[in-house]
This record gives sequence, structure tokens and C-alpha cells, in this order.
Amino acid sequence: MPKEFKIAKGVKDWYGREAILRNEIKDALKRVFERYGYNPIETPMIERAETVKFKGGEEIQKEIFTLKDQGKRELALRFDQTLPLARFVASNKDVKFPFKRYVIGEVFRDGPTQPEQGRYRVFTQCDVDILGVKDMIAEAELLALAQDCFKEMGLGNITVKINNRKLLDGILEYAGVPDKDKFNTIIILDKMDKIGIEGVKKEIKLLLPKEKIDKLVSAITKAKNNNETYKKLTEIISSKNGIEGLNEIKQLLDYSKNMGFNFIEFDPSLARGLDYYTGTTIEVYLKDKSVVKSAVLAGGRFDNMIGAFSGGKKEIPAVGFSFGLERIAMILNDIKKNLKSSNTELYLIPINTAKECLKIANSLRSQGLNVDMDLKGKKMGQAITYADSLGIPYAGIIGEDELKEDSITIKNLKTREQKKIKINEAYKYLKAK
Amino acid sequence: MPKEFKIAKGVKDWYGREAILRNEIKDALKRVFERYGYNPIETPMIERAETVKFKGGEEIQKEIFTLKDQGKRELALRFDQTLPLARFVASNKDVKFPFKRYVIGEVFRDGPTQPEQGRYRVFTQCDVDILGVKDMIAEAELLALAQDCFKEMGLGNITVKINNRKLLDGILEYAGVPDKDKFNTIIILDKMDKIGIEGVKKEIKLLLPKEKIDKLVSAITKAKNNNETYKKLTEIISSKNGIEGLNEIKQLLDYSKNMGFNFIEFDPSLARGLDYYTGTTIEVYLKDKSVVKSAVLAGGRFDNMIGAFSGGKKEIPAVGFSFGLERIAMILNDIKKNLKSSNTELYLIPINTAKECLKIANSLRSQGLNVDMDLKGKKMGQAITYADSLGIPYAGIIGEDELKEDSITIKNLKTREQKKIKINEAYKYLKAK
Repeated sequence: MPKEFKIAKGVKDWYGREAILRNEIKDALKRVFERYGYNPIETPMIERAETVKFKGGEEIQKEIFTLKDQGKRELALRFDQTLPLARFVASNKDVKFPFKRYVIGEVFRDGPTQPEQGRYRVFTQCDVDILGVKDMIAEAELLALAQDCFKEMGLGNITVKINNRKLLDGILEYAGVPDKDKFNTIIILDKMDKIGIEGVKKEIKLLLPKEKIDKLVSAITKAKNNNETYKKLTEIISSKNGIEGLNEIKQLLDYSKNMGFNFIEFDPSLARGLDYYTGTTIEVYLKDKSVVKSAVLAGGRFDNMIGAFSGGKKEIPAVGFSFGLERIAMILNDIKKNLKSSNTELYLIPINTAKECLKIANSLRSQGLNVDMDLKGKKMGQAITYADSLGIPYAGIIGEDELKEDSITIKNLKTREQKKIKINEAYKYLKAK
Repeated sequence: MPKEFKIAKGVKDWYGREAILRNEIKDALKRVFERYGYNPIETPMIERAETVKFKGGEEIQKEIFTLKDQGKRELALRFDQTLPLARFVASNKDVKFPFKRYVIGEVFRDGPTQPEQGRYRVFTQCDVDILGVKDMIAEAELLALAQDCFKEMGLGNITVKINNRKLLDGILEYAGVPDKDKFNTIIILDKMDKIGIEGVKKEIKLLLPKEKIDKLVSAITKAKNNNETYKKLTEIISSKNGIEGLNEIKQLLDYSKNMGFNFIEFDPSLARGLDYYTGTTIEVYLKDKSVVKSAVLAGGRFDNMIGAFSGGKKEIPAVGFSFGLERIAMILNDIKKNLKSSNTELYLIPINTAKECLKIANSLRSQGLNVDMDLKGKKMGQAITYADSLGIPYAGIIGEDELKEDSITIKNLKTREQKKIKINEAYKYLKAK
């Protein structure tokens, strides 16, 4: 027998306040997703290897966990929620479009981890996607949804940056970036929030001559407001693709204005380093940069991928978002005071009344209270210390006196105040606190 | 590119009413678990292989999915929730006893599947366990919890069978079953609910002579009530272990009687085919056998396993239950009428009012309604057919007339009745339905 059993590398146990917080975030996201008409699907964590390996460069392929079953079938753990969605749609003839689904579940990546950034090998992606809508009204709905999600999580103060991959192509063309360098330029631009414009310029120097860099930087620099940025770009963008992207941005800005959204920022420097985006790209930032500088949510339009999975016979436009649970939990864990470390509201301590106390616990539970009780016959002091160490706010002492009077002596474990309360009033008393 | 992307063998996509039902069951179980003072933990789906392989015979070992990371570390997908719990406790010094936790999450088994029984290669176990309590009061709490879980899921009418592994050992000794045949006898007894007493006798014949079978069968046969069964066994059980088991049964029956539980049935034939049980064993059945004959919940006491994981230095008593989500969902899916296939309450149909409708949708959502809307400019008939096919109960039509009057024409998609309602009364109107 091994002397010590350890957790595997790059993964984490969640318990106490972190586990409760994770559940609260998932519940909040689910509530908002359903409020916007998204319904849940769950695809399995194990897929055929060919499904998981269908998209993505060499770097991604290396990070796919593969395995075999007893029948030697080639399998893989899902790497994201998007390819399984594409496989689901391809293999289900009764999917009706538009198809709006959400999914909350673990994905697996055999890569480097950064616990301080909330990056693990097993992590939870919360995705919403709309399939089957080409118009920017889909993006408009998603912007409203994103705002509501952050509001629901107590992170209401956000900036949403939008851009468009087709427009970015137009800008690269305007700046004279050769085709072969386009994707690498996008990858460098994507680092903007980490390395700043000076860092971007420095890296791009290895790729492009100064003249082209100047044109590029001037084109991707925001003007003083969304209208001005739009106007500026209409004057320099001439490729068909670029103009289409710019029109889409205009439509999305119109929808946003109509919804009264003043937190939308058209930022032509916004790049997303994933090669499957075809149109709108979106990133959400907290206004308070002291909490976290980089994006807290990202998404965009990928009109070609779902269709490619279905044999490429039809185009299935798609746009969506992915919330990283670990990252949001890390942020909330940092900034929220008074996170609960237990969901239990009352800890009953029987003083030689264990059997009666079991019944009282059941009756309080049936009233809707979360009740734990001492099952070990601990002394009162020890029991109180235990309840307090778990983070339970109240103890309820039940001795023979209390039994006679159908009462509980309820003790606030913070203030140490206590009060004798009738059992049938305990719910009201504690919920009023 | 492969022509067709298929789901892997032995797993399943959950969507529509099945996905919604799964969420409802998980939520119901979480509510009850927390009502009893259990708090959530999540351990990772990937563990070191040595952890997952620590317990269980050859059959179990074969069904463990193993994999390697880029660093060639030997890993495995978790096979159940119990070994990860033991590993968690062993590797976390700040766990306080008693430790009451629940976990709801997927486990992985590379074995035969039976979709018609709810058996898949990836399935969801919902476990509650109490660590650190040796007294039968822990079992008593779990019986109350089990009853509440089934009530919460609308399956209130249950029978709970209890037995005790130590008592069963005593019975095997009384019947003269040789040590080497004891565990195989238990495995055969465990098939009682599938093959009946005659089937059990037939299989046991290959193991034991008639005289021993007769003694065994007479000992495991229930008397007319729990008291009589208990009395009968006190007269024949003489081994130390057996008497201890019988005393534990007595204590548990006393606790149950005190809580007013009339659904507990002491059944000395109850056997659980897992070698780690050390005391109480529990199985829950629905009273209505037409729904499902076999157990819907099982659990028991395993006082040696958690300690063994911690190097065997201390005994950590443990008792718990495991709900199989797929099985419960299958039962509810079979017997419940009117399961929802969408969580959406209202489907807005703009008639040339898409932009205004976006705003109205947002305002209804902020009131707390789950609202979807047509994003494709479908014709009214098509939009209604679409909403109806998703299972959304109401459509809300918004044309220019409605806009002028701040109203929605709400149409019940079952009865086809419709009524014009002020927007700010829509919530009340729909929630009153």
C-alpha cells in the first residue's frame, strides 16, 4: 500500500466556501441562461477521439487527454464544449433551429496549469450558444445576457468590448499585412491586455516593417467614441470582407444603443486568438481594473464550424460565450466579504436529549431550515467550537428544560448572545436575522 | 474528414425534458442534503491511478478507465465517489470530524451498459456520507434524509430495508457456511430481488449442502414484524460479531421508531455485494413495485476504508448512501406526466417590431420571467409552430398595435386562447396560470 495518497497534478479539490461559491455561481448562471430562453444539454465527457481532435492546431492536439476502452476504441476527454455541441447537432436530426442551449460542465486539458489564474487541467466551462441566426440580433441578445449574468453574480460594473473578425481582416489588408502573417498578427494583438500597445509593437516588429505597423496601429486605435471609431474606419476600409464586418459592427451598435447599453465599446484592436471565429468577437472586462485586468468573459461568432461537423452540407451560423467558472470564482473569492463556509443555519446540541433532538431536527428541517446536530454526545463547549469552526452561525441547545417547554436556546456564535425560543418559532426567528 | 461524427459507445447526450429533469433531481437532492447539514465538496474526475485502483477485485480493475498525461504519469478517471473521498480526507489535514459531505458528479466505468436500466459508462453519482460517527444515530439521520429525498422528488412511498453485515456474518456462521464460501454466499443473496428465494436456493446449491441451506434460509427469512425477526435471531445468533450486529439493528430500530418511521423493514436476507461494508446495510424500494422492482437507493457502513487510506493509523467510521441519477431520472421520466421540455415560459413574436421587442424581452426577464423571442423574423404561424414544438406554453405577439398600447397579445399554445395584456401585468398574468 502506498504510504500517502495524493491528488493528481494540476487538479484541485473544492470544499468549504469555495465549493459553496462554485454552486452559487453555477446557479446564478443557470437562472440567467434560462431567463433568456436557453435550455440545458449535457454531452458526455468522453467522446470519440476523432470528434475532440477535429479542430485546433498542434498545441491543442497535444493537450487532449486520450484513452481507450476495453474494446480498444480511440476515445478522448472533451477539450471544450463547442466541438461536443457540433457533434451533438450533427448526430441529432431532431434539433430545431434556432437552437439555444447552455451547458455547464468539466473540460480536460493536459497542459500547463496556473492555479493563481484559475487554470487547472480539469475545469468547468459554462457555455451559451445560439445556432441558426445570422443577424446581429443574436449578438444583441447575448450582450444583454452577459450584462445580466455579471449583475446576478454581483459584478455588475462591466465594459463589453466588441470587434469583428472580418473587419480585422479588412484592417490587416489596409495595413498591407501579407496573408501568411495575418493569423500571427492576430495572435500578437490578442496579447494587448497583457503586454500593452508597446509590447504589441515590439513583438510585431519581428513580423512587419515600421510603415505597416504604423498603419496597423493607427487603424486599430479607438477614437474618442464608438461613432468616431466607426467613421474613421469607414474612411480607410475598402475590402468586401472589411466593409461587411464594419456593417455588422454598426448593426450591433444600433441594437445596443436601442437597448440603452452604454457599456459597449467598439475596439478595433480586439483580437481573439482562436481560428474558428468568423465575425463578431466579444470580451467583457470589469470596470474596476484593480480586481482583474484581463477579460472575464469572451466569445464570438463561428459560422463555419457547426456546419463543417454536419458534413459541410449546410451553413449553421453560431454565436456564443464561454464563462470560466474557476476564474469567476477566484475573482469573487477575492473580493467578496462574508462568503459562507457552510450552508447549515443551525447546529443543534442535545444535552442528554439525542433521541428527542433527532425529531426536533427533522421538524425544523421540514420547516425549511438547514439543520445539523451533534451526533457524538460532545460536551457543549466542544460542540460550539466545532459548529463555529465549520462556519455555522447559530447553535441550538436542547436540554431537559428546553424539552419541557418545547423550546430551543438559540446562541449566536458570533455575538455569543442567546435566547430561548419556542421550537415552532425558530424558523421565523432565524430567517428574520 | 470523417463523414459522420458519432457519440462514443455507452454514453448518452441529455437534452430537452431529460436534461431539465436531471437538473431538477440534482437541485432537489442538493436542497435536502443541505437541509440535513451536509456541505458540498467536488473532487476532480482525474485521480492518480493508484488511488482509483486501491480497492476492488479484478472485475472492478478491468472497468477503470486509465490514461497518462504528457509527463507519463499514471492517471485514472474516478470509478466512484468513495475512494476520492477517502483520498481527500487522507490528504487534507484540516478536515474536522464528524465530516458530513455531499457530492454530485460523474463517475466512469468501462463496462457493459444497459440503457434500459439507466446504466452508462459515464454516469452521475449523488453521494452523502458521514465520517467520524460510530453510533447508529448516524444511520438514523440518513434514514430520515433518504425519506425526505424521495418525498422531495415526488416518490414518497418507500420501504427501507435494513440489515447488518456483522449480523449476516453471524448468520452464515450459524448456518455453518465455511469461511471460503462466505463472500460468494453474500453475492448470491444480493441477487434476491432479481432472482427470488428459489433462484437463490438454486445457485447456493452449487456451494452448500442442503442442511446448511435450510438453516441459512430459515435464519434469513423475515418473521411477521421487525420485533419478531429480531427475537428469532437473538435465539440463534451466538458469535460475538453476530450479536454486535444484532445490537446495532436494535439501536437503529429504536431510533426509527422514535422518529415515527413505519417504513423501516429489518430484512436479514438483505446482502450488499461490496466487500467494504462493515455494519449496517440499507436498501430503499418504492412501495409501488409496478414502477421498479429493484432497489432505488443503497448504502451502508464502511468503518475501515477511510482509515486505511490514511495509512491505517486511525479508524474513521463512515456511513453513507449513493443515489444513481440516471436510474432515478429514468423512473421519474416513466411515471411523471407533464414533464417540462423547456424552461422557457413565454415566446415573443415581433411583427416588424424586433428592436422594440428586444427591449420588452429584457424588461420581462428582469421581472423574473423566462423569455425567448423570435430572432429570425419568422412568420407568425411558423413562429408559433416553432415555440410549440419546443414545449413553450405561451406565445406573446407584439405588433404595432400592441406597441402603442404597451401590451402583448398572449396566446396559450395548448388551448389557443389569447388575450391582450399590459406588459407590466404579463408577469402576474403568466405566473397566476
